[in-house]
Amino acid sequence: MDSDYGIPRELSDLQKLRSLYQPVLPPCLEGTTVRVEFGDATTTLDPTDVHTISRSFPHTYGQPLAHFLRATAKVPDAHIITEHPAKRVGIVFCGRQSPGGHNVIWGLYNALKLHNPNSTLLGFLGGSEGLFAQKTLEITDDILATYKNQGGYDLLGRTKDQIRTIEQVNAALTACKDLKLVGLVIIGGVTSTTDAAQLAETFAEAKCPTKVVGVPVTLNGDLKNQFVETNVGFDTICKVNSQLISNVCTDALSAEKYYYFIRLMGRKHSHVALECTLQSHPNMVILGEEVAASKLTLFDITKQICDAVQARAEQVSFLSWLLKQRIWTDKYHGVILLPEGLIESIPEVYALLKEIHGLLRQGVSVDNISSQLSPWASALFEFLPPFIKRQLLLYPESDDSAQLSQIETEKLLAHLVEAEMNKRQKEGTYKGKKFIAICHFFGYQARGSLPSKFDCDYAYVLGHICYHILAAGLNGYMATVTNLKNPVNKWRCGATPITVMMTVKRWSQNPGASSIGKPAIHPATVDLKGKAYELLRQNATQLLIDDLYRNPGPLQFDGPGADAKAVTLCVEDQDYMGRIKKLQEYLDKVRTIVKPGCSQDVLKAALSVMASVTDVLSTMSSPSFNSQSPH
Amino acid sequence: MDSDYGIPRELSDLQKLRSLYQPVLPPCLEGTTVRVEFGDATTTLDPTDVHTISRSFPHTYGQPLAHFLRATAKVPDAHIITEHPAKRVGIVFCGRQSPGGHNVIWGLYNALKLHNPNSTLLGFLGGSEGLFAQKTLEITDDILATYKNQGGYDLLGRTKDQIRTIEQVNAALTACKDLKLVGLVIIGGVTSTTDAAQLAETFAEAKCPTKVVGVPVTLNGDLKNQFVETNVGFDTICKVNSQLISNVCTDALSAEKYYYFIRLMGRKHSHVALECTLQSHPNMVILGEEVAASKLTLFDITKQICDAVQARAEQVSFLSWLLKQRIWTDKYHGVILLPEGLIESIPEVYALLKEIHGLLRQGVSVDNISSQLSPWASALFEFLPPFIKRQLLLYPESDDSAQLSQIETEKLLAHLVEAEMNKRQKEGTYKGKKFIAICHFFGYQARGSLPSKFDCDYAYVLGHICYHILAAGLNGYMATVTNLKNPVNKWRCGATPITVMMTVKRWSQNPGASSIGKPAIHPATVDLKGKAYELLRQNATQLLIDDLYRNPGPLQFDGPGADAKAVTLCVEDQDYMGRIKKLQEYLDKVRTIVKPGCSQDVLKAALSVMASVTDVLSTMSSPSFNSQSPH
Repeated sequence: MDSDYGIPRELSDLQKLRSLYQPVLPPCLEGTTVRVEFGDATTTLDPTDVHTISRSFPHTYGQPLAHFLRATAKVPDAHIITEHPAKRVGIVFCGRQSPGGHNVIWGLYNALKLHNPNSTLLGFLGGSEGLFAQKTLEITDDILATYKNQGGYDLLGRTKDQIRTIEQVNAALTACKDLKLVGLVIIGGVTSTTDAAQLAETFAEAKCPTKVVGVPVTLNGDLKNQFVETNVGFDTICKVNSQLISNVCTDALSAEKYYYFIRLMGRKHSHVALECTLQSHPNMVILGEEVAASKLTLFDITKQICDAVQARAEQVSFLSWLLKQRIWTDKYHGVILLPEGLIESIPEVYALLKEIHGLLRQGVSVDNISSQLSPWASALFEFLPPFIKRQLLLYPESDDSAQLSQIETEKLLAHLVEAEMNKRQKEGTYKGKKFIAICHFFGYQARGSLPSKFDCDYAYVLGHICYHILAAGLNGYMATVTNLKNPVNKWRCGATPITVMMTVKRWSQNPGASSIGKPAIHPATVDLKGKAYELLRQNATQLLIDDLYRNPGPLQFDGPGADAKAVTLCVEDQDYMGRIKKLQEYLDKVRTIVKPGCSQDVLKAALSVMASVTDVLSTMSSPSFNSQSPH
Repeated sequence: MDSDYGIPRELSDLQKLRSLYQPVLPPCLEGTTVRVEFGDATTTLDPTDVHTISRSFPHTYGQPLAHFLRATAKVPDAHIITEHPAKRVGIVFCGRQSPGGHNVIWGLYNALKLHNPNSTLLGFLGGSEGLFAQKTLEITDDILATYKNQGGYDLLGRTKDQIRTIEQVNAALTACKDLKLVGLVIIGGVTSTTDAAQLAETFAEAKCPTKVVGVPVTLNGDLKNQFVETNVGFDTICKVNSQLISNVCTDALSAEKYYYFIRLMGRKHSHVALECTLQSHPNMVILGEEVAASKLTLFDITKQICDAVQARAEQVSFLSWLLKQRIWTDKYHGVILLPEGLIESIPEVYALLKEIHGLLRQGVSVDNISSQLSPWASALFEFLPPFIKRQLLLYPESDDSAQLSQIETEKLLAHLVEAEMNKRQKEGTYKGKKFIAICHFFGYQARGSLPSKFDCDYAYVLGHICYHILAAGLNGYMATVTNLKNPVNKWRCGATPITVMMTVKRWSQNPGASSIGKPAIHPATVDLKGKAYELLRQNATQLLIDDLYRNPGPLQFDGPGADAKAVTLCVEDQDYMGRIKKLQEYLDKVRTIVKPGCSQDVLKAALSVMASVTDVLSTMSSPSFNSQSPH
C-alpha cells in the first residue's frame, strides 16, 4: 500500500480533455435540498428466504426503498432535508478495478462540498487493507484534478477484496469510530456489496453511528437485479472488447484462413460475452448459462464448434445481384467468443474442479492431486492437455471459483476442435482446408481503459446519490439509478436496502439432509428467457454463416457512438423502480376515488375487481406457480 | 478466394460516419492536369551496390525522381499532362493486411474517374493468387461505399505474399496483357515492393505496356528510407496498441501486483515497439536492434529485466510536497514491451533458428530435429521450456524469418525472469514480494482496426499519386509523400524508382569466399543513432522507476487526439525530398549568378568555394569515411 497515490501525473491530450468533462446531474439531485420519499418496506427476491435473511439482518432487513425527488415533485409525505452539518465520510475501492470507479469518489466529493464546504472525504489507501490499517488520503480538488473521468483505481489503489472475518469487521468498525465517520462508502461488486450489508448490520448492532453504503461497480455486470440495471465499468469493458473483437473479425475476413478463439474476462457469468456479441456480431458465442442449462459436456461443445466450422466450409454458392456473378462462400475463417466462466459451466469440468479445490484446501500438494482424484475425475484430468492441467490445479479464488483468468479455455477448445477436424479430414467426412486456430484472451487490456461517457456519468451520479443516502441517515443501502437507457435528465435516483437483493443457497447432497448457505448477493446469470438472449438466438444462424461482422469502432468521446449504450441495457425493459412508483400511483388513485362518501356502486365494483386482482397476484406469487426463481 | 467480396454490409454508426469522411488532397494533386518535374537520375543507397543493381535492372535502374507540382508552381521544364485517355488499371493487395489499404483503392479510383469517367479500375480478388488467376472485381461507387475509411483488406481479400517464381511472374504478365492494363498497382510492404520492382523490369524487358507501381502499406513501418517516411497502417497499429498498453499500465498501477510482459506484432524490427513506448510510457522496452547491437544473450536480457524488477522493489522513500507526507515507492508491478522480432535478434537463438530452418528445408521431420542439431545449439534447445521448443520448430515464413507471431517470447522471458527472481529470493539477494507475470500478445486485435485519420488521408493521397505516376507513364516507381509531419496542404507528392531503395546483402562465411544476395528492399532497422531512439534513452530511467504511464486513449476521429501523428514521424527530421529540391534550387541559383559575363572575381570565388565543397562531399561519400551504411 505504500505507494505514490494521488500524485499529479502527466496526462495525454485526450486524457486532459476527458479530465475537463463535467457529467450533468439528473434533476432529482440538483440543488442543495435533499428530498426523499420512502416506499413500502422491502422483502426478499425469493419469499422462502425471508426468514433466514430477516434473522441474519435484524437491524437492516425490511427497510423501505428510498426515492430522491426533484424540487418540482409534489409528494406530500416526502422528507425534506435542508440542514447539512459538516460530515466526515470514508470511501474505499473493494475488489477488482473497473473503469469509472474514480468518478464515484468525485461525485461524492462534489456533493459533500456542495452541501457543506467543511465536510471531509477520506479515501482509504490500498482497498480494504487500507481501511483496516486506517491509511487515508484526504480528497481535495488538487488530488482529483488528474483522476476525473480516468480509468483504473490508482488514485487510491486496492488490495484484497474481503471484509468478512471477525478481525476484518472489527478493524473496519474501529477505523470508522476512530476516524469519526458518519458514512463509509464501499465501491465494489457482488462480494463487496454482501460484505457492505454485513458491515452495516454489525455497525447498527454495535451502535456505531457510521452508515454503510454500497455502490455497484464491477466490469462483470453481474450485480444485476430489479433495482440495479447495470454496473459501472460494464459499458466501457464491453465497448473496448467489442472494438477488439471487431478488429479480429475484420482480420479474419481479410486473411480468410484462421479461426479466432477469444476468451473474455467477466468472471462466472456471461454478461460481457453476450453484450460483446450483440455489439460486434462474431460468428459464434458459447454462453456458460447455455452450457449449464443444456448440461453440455466438453465433447458436446467441441462437436458444436466442429459442426459450425464444417457448415461454413460447405456453404453453397449463390448469385449476387450486386456483382452479377456467382459467388462461392466456402469459408475457412471465423471468430468464436468464450466467456472465462465457461470452463466452470461444463458439468464434468466443474465436478473435477470441485474435487481439486477440496484436495487443495485439505493441503494436498499439487503433485499428489491427480492420484487422489475419484476414478471418473481422474480419467477426465488425464485426458486434458498438460497446460490446462497445470491451470486447473491453481488455488481457488476467495469466492470459491477457479482462477478463471488463468485457465486458457480458448486454447483447450481450439486444441480439441483441431484434433476433431483432423480426424474428420482423415475419415473423409470433412473435405475442406486444414483448420487453423489463433487464441486470444481479452481482459487486462480493457480493464484499465478510459471510462466511456456513460460510465463517467453513471459513476458520478452514483457518487452524488451516496451523499443523499447519508444525508437521509440510511444504513445498509445501495445507491441506485434506474431508467438508465434514457438520457440523464430522465434517470431515477434512489436507494435500495442491500438485504432485498440477497438470496440463500440450499443444497441437498444427501437425501433427507439439506444444507443452507449464508445470505448473500449472488452474481446474476444471463437470463435465457430475457430479451437480450432472444435477440442473440434470433440472429445466431445468420451470424454463424453470413459474416455479419459489425465494427462499433474504438470508444469515442465525441460525435456518433459517444453516447451509445449497451445493447443489453437498451433491449431489456427494466424500469422496475418506475413501475413500482407507477403502481403506488394507481393504488393511491383507487384510494382517492373510492373515498368514504362514494356511491355504493363504485365501492362494489372496486371491491369485486380488487378481489380478483389480489387472487391472480397471489397465485402468481406462490412458489408452486413458477418453479424457477423470478429473475 | 471464392468469397463474398465487395458485398454491401451493415455498418455501425461510427463506421457509417467514417465512410462519409472525405480526405483532402494536397494542392499538387488538385485539378485535372498532371504536372511532373523530374530530378536527377537516381543511384543506390549504398554506392557499392550500383553495379549489381544496375545489371539486374537494366530497364528500370537509374530513373529520375519525379515530383508532382501544384498549378501555381513555376518550373519551366515541368511536363504538363492535360490529355487523359481512358485507362484500365489493376490493383492488388499483397502481404498482410494493414489499416488504410482500402483507401489506396478509393484514392486511385477517384483519380481515374476524375480524369476520365471511362477509365476502369479492376481489383484482383484474393491477392496475388487472384492476379495469377485473373479473378477481378470492377471497382464502382456502390462497391466502395461501405469500404471507404474502413479497416481490413476484405474488399478484395489477400492470400499469398509473393510474385517471385518464373510461373508467378509469367502468370502476372499474362494477366496484365489479357486484361489490357496500362498499370498494375501493388499494395504491400518490403517483400511485395521488391516483387513489384522485379515485375516492372520483366514487363519492360517483355515490352508489356503495363506499368508497375508500388504503394508502401505495412503495419510494420519497416519500409522506411530517405524517400518513404512511414507506411500506411503503422499510425493506426501504434495508436491501437498504445491504447491497450496504457490500459494495462493503468491496470498494473491499480492492482500493484503484476508484471505484464507484452509482445507486439511488427515482424523483424522494432518500429512498432519504439513508437508505442513513446506514446504510452511503459516501464521498459527491449528493442531487437539494441539486443543485436550489444549481442545480448537470453541470460543478459533476463538479468536486465530482473535487475529492473529488483530496482523497483527497492525504491527508497521520498517526501511528497502534495500529500505532505513520506511516500514509499517499493513497486511490485510493471509493464515491459517486447517486439515479436526480439527472439531473432538474440544471437544464440538466431543461430539455433538458422540450424532448425536448415534442417526443416532438408526435409528433416520435426521429431528428429533436436538430435541433429550441433552440440551447442542442442544444449540451448534442451534448456528451453517445451512450449517454446514446439514454436521454434515451426516452418519458416516466405521471407526466411521464423513464424514470429507464433513464438511466445513474452512467456519465455516471464518464465526465465520468474525462475531467476525465485532464485534470488531463496539466496536472500532479493527481499521483495513474489514476482508474478501476466503475458499478452497484441497483434491480431489491432490489425483490423478502423484506420486513423492520418492513415485514411495518407492512403487516399497515395492512391491518387498512383494515377499521376501512370499518367506520366512511369514504370517501377513507388508512390511517395514526404513532409508528412506537416498538414496535408504541405505534403510533397512524388514518385521514386524502387531500385534506389534496394541494397545487396553480402556474406563471408568462409574467409576468402564471399556470397552476394539478390538486390532487394530490406526492412529498415530502428536507427540507434536516430532522434526517436535518443528520446527513448533520455527518458528510460525515469520510465523504468517512476511509472510515468501516459494514456493516449482509444483512437479518436473527432476532437483532440484525432489529428495526432506518430511520435517517431514527428521527431525525426526527415524531409529528404524537400532537401533534394532545395539543393537543386541552390545549384540553379549559383548557375544563374555565375553566368558567362559575370566578373572574374565572382567566378574565382565560386570556383574556389565549390572546389572545397566537392572535396568535402566526396570525402564524406567515400565508403571508408563511414563504415556503417548511411541509413
